[in-house]
Amino acid sequence: MTDITFIISRIESMMYEVTFDPVQRKGKIIANISIVDEADFKKVLNLIRQAVHSGLSVSPYIKIIRSGEKIGNLKIEKGKTGIATACSITIDGVLLKSGVPVKPKFGGVVEIHDGSPLRFTDILTYESTTIDPLDVLMSQELTSVTEMVNTGSGKILANLREAPMAARDRIEQVLDSLVEAGFSCILEVGEPNSDILGIQVGRDKLGIAVIGGTNPMALVQEHGIDINTQEMSILLDIGEMTHIDEVK
Amino acid sequence: MTDITFIISRIESMMYEVTFDPVQRKGKIIANISIVDEADFKKVLNLIRQAVHSGLSVSPYIKIIRSGEKIGNLKIEKGKTGIATACSITIDGVLLKSGVPVKPKFGGVVEIHDGSPLRFTDILTYESTTIDPLDVLMSQELTSVTEMVNTGSGKILANLREAPMAARDRIEQVLDSLVEAGFSCILEVGEPNSDILGIQVGRDKLGIAVIGGTNPMALVQEHGIDINTQEMSILLDIGEMTHIDEVK
Repeated sequence: MTDITFIISRIESMMYEVTFDPVQRKGKIIANISIVDEADFKKVLNLIRQAVHSGLSVSPYIKIIRSGEKIGNLKIEKGKTGIATACSITIDGVLLKSGVPVKPKFGGVVEIHDGSPLRFTDILTYESTTIDPLDVLMSQELTSVTEMVNTGSGKILANLREAPMAARDRIEQVLDSLVEAGFSCILEVGEPNSDILGIQVGRDKLGIAVIGGTNPMALVQEHGIDINTQEMSILLDIGEMTHIDEVK
Repeated sequence: MTDITFIISRIESMMYEVTFDPVQRKGKIIANISIVDEADFKKVLNLIRQAVHSGLSVSPYIKIIRSGEKIGNLKIEKGKTGIATACSITIDGVLLKSGVPVKPKFGGVVEIHDGSPLRFTDILTYESTTIDPLDVLMSQELTSVTEMVNTGSGKILANLREAPMAARDRIEQVLDSLVEAGFSCILEVGEPNSDILGIQVGRDKLGIAVIGGTNPMALVQEHGIDINTQEMSILLDIGEMTHIDEVK
């Protein structure tokens, strides 16, 4: 297929640009930008905070962009506020830069029961769509992030990547350092050659399921508040971001 | 991948059930069911008629299901009206039943300029998603069917299938008989081994682009009217359907 760009191409370009080192806690991550009405901002911030505290975000770090300010090529319009949050493809970038040949496979919806992930119920592979799967799944209203936050059961956005089982020790080391740096978004790491959340992995591969960076936005949307999110929008230095508990 | 069902599986099952013979104009086609508020029905019917007359539907045949009536397993609620229309996968079913090994590839958005299709701008392949691509693309608001109807230029829903070039004569014959039977939804038939609307086909294959059956629903949605469409919902005997110009 010739003239069109599949989402996997964009993912790979963005992964290449990641410089975040979880041990030093320095460098660039991939960020999603969400735009909301200024009037809704307080409510939105509270919902995002709720999602972060329920373990439904990639990291607790955010950056607020006020109306009139610019981020990347994007200028925030009058009456609007921008919120940059970590995108889960950051994890793939960090693994890649640690020498792990990681392959992002798909975005989907995972059913959670009493805090435990059960299985993927819907998926869209990155190699075969020109639109971001999590964006698609969010607009299909297949999530129940509110229910998940309130009861510990529900349907959330997540994605899957594969890596060779030979790299298992290195992967665990990198994921541990990511968790220590606040990126506690790892949903499940599969056993080599074993299904992960109902999905078969390739031969001599293991699967890594990560919480989708747009779960907080799905929560906002489920509350009937307009939010416009651009996934994998920019690269952002972690030094420019603030822990959500320190944002007023 | 194990527990989940990709849309291609459902497509193939439905194709197998098609018995429509375009020469006899008898048999079962695949239909989409759309549900609208009774109060909106007149407006919706006019918009669908407009789409049909602009060549943006699979066929002009529809079936109205009034509130309280059943279609398949679906009972139409009080205050609602159901509208069954032809799904474009009917074309694949008819080709299959004519002995052509046809392979549905993806749903997407096609840019039209002055009545001529230019290229696919977005696509989702059937083999890699659990959700109907046209449903996804409709909810992403990527279409401009209204503009297309008014100006002859715009973005519409379409899909692509491949078939072996060896079957070319038979394919042309079947497509001609479909057009004669009112299924004038063929957007473009590619040359063997040549790109079709910017998309490369497999070796010794040709591509067939067909108008998406949900363009009339995209038009309704673009007019701000609520419409809930289930694609590939049921099999429906063409004898139960009426030409839209004869529906009051």
